[in-house]
Amino acid sequence: METREIELETGELLVTDVTAHAAELALGRGDGLLHLFTPHATAGLGLMETGSGSEHDLAAAVERLLPRTADYRHRHGRPGHGADHLLPLFVSPSLVVSVLGGELRLGTWQRIVLIDPNRDNRRRRLQLSFLAAQR
Amino acid sequence: METREIELETGELLVTDVTAHAAELALGRGDGLLHLFTPHATAGLGLMETGSGSEHDLAAAVERLLPRTADYRHRHGRPGHGADHLLPLFVSPSLVVSVLGGELRLGTWQRIVLIDPNRDNRRRRLQLSFLAAQR
Amino acid sequence: METREIELETGELLVTDVTAHAAELALGRGDGLLHLFTPHATAGLGLMETGSGSEHDLAAAVERLLPRTADYRHRHGRPGHGADHLLPLFVSPSLVVSVLGGELRLGTWQRIVLIDPNRDNRRRRLQLSFLAAQR
Repeated sequence: METREIELETGELLVTDVTAHAAELALGRGDGLLHLFTPHATAGLGLMETGSGSEHDLAAAVERLLPRTADYRHRHGRPGHGADHLLPLFVSPSLVVSVLGGELRLGTWQRIVLIDPNRDNRRRRLQLSFLAAQR
Repeated sequence: METREIELETGELLVTDVTAHAAELALGRGDGLLHLFTPHATAGLGLMETGSGSEHDLAAAVERLLPRTADYRHRHGRPGHGADHLLPLFVSPSLVVSVLGGELRLGTWQRIVLIDPNRDNRRRRLQLSFLAAQR
Repeated sequence: METREIELETGELLVTDVTAHAAELALGRGDGLLHLFTPHATAGLGLMETGSGSEHDLAAAVERLLPRTADYRHRHGRPGHGADHLLPLFVSPSLVVSVLGGELRLGTWQRIVLIDPNRDNRRRRLQLSFLAAQR
């Protein structure tokens, strides 16, 4: 199994495109499954079209569905941080994509993204694990 | 790795049962993990009981959680199409099921379904990749 | 592929920590991917920090997002049981974690949890499948 861990600067961004990191690990490795994982309790991974406004729409939806103004029992961090701890239940930090001939099998508009609602944690780790098919 | 790509007619349906396609690829292939993937930015995959009303309930929940009447920055397609682009963040287009002795390991009431809220895209692709265990 | 099926007593709990079961199966097995699956139509699997109040916050969020008081077409079981059938679409019953040197690769605060909103079903099954990397 080929593994790699990358540190990303997510800063203030809710959505960070990590497709290039996945494509780089897959390159030249034949067929198999690529597992992506972010080892944090307040971030997730997803697939979406980027660059057409959906990043903004996702921020609005997350605020509507998991509002920072709600009353949370989780009280570490800033007010509303309890919401960040619920996000990974709905946007999982674990994602699998398939690799064929060293290339990610993604649709034309799909980008792999890290979703990080927690602005106080500006650096995030991404773990990649490629499990090759038997030849 | 055994792979297959299928084209499905989803038409006006939010929920399309794809279990038979998965079972067919698994058949006779021993043990391993089956990865299902839909290469679209406005569809997801899930597991649910079908035929008991939950398809209707899911349609109502999706409309409530990701309303078409909200104001979306994503402006391609019909009004409300921005909602379709958020669905895959919450209902991932990637799903893994395990296969034992050539059979899908699913619960009695679980069906694998493709969730497609986008009525303007009536055909959808489903990619299947079976990674066999070493013997 | 190493597989195991465990029966859990979830009782009245929405959140049941299953990390120890996953760690036990991984132990001593080298590198690979561990697939966790719950074969039920009204339960899911996730990763979260436990013991800091988020279990309570999740219960409140699930009730807000998928209210038992809504009108469901699915009419088996108690009033509101239709909501339980929608949960797995948003909190998938399928989860993959990676294993390196026989250890689960999880973040410091991440626990693997079974999410069971259905209080009438007090026992749940968890299936584990470990697919080892080629050596």
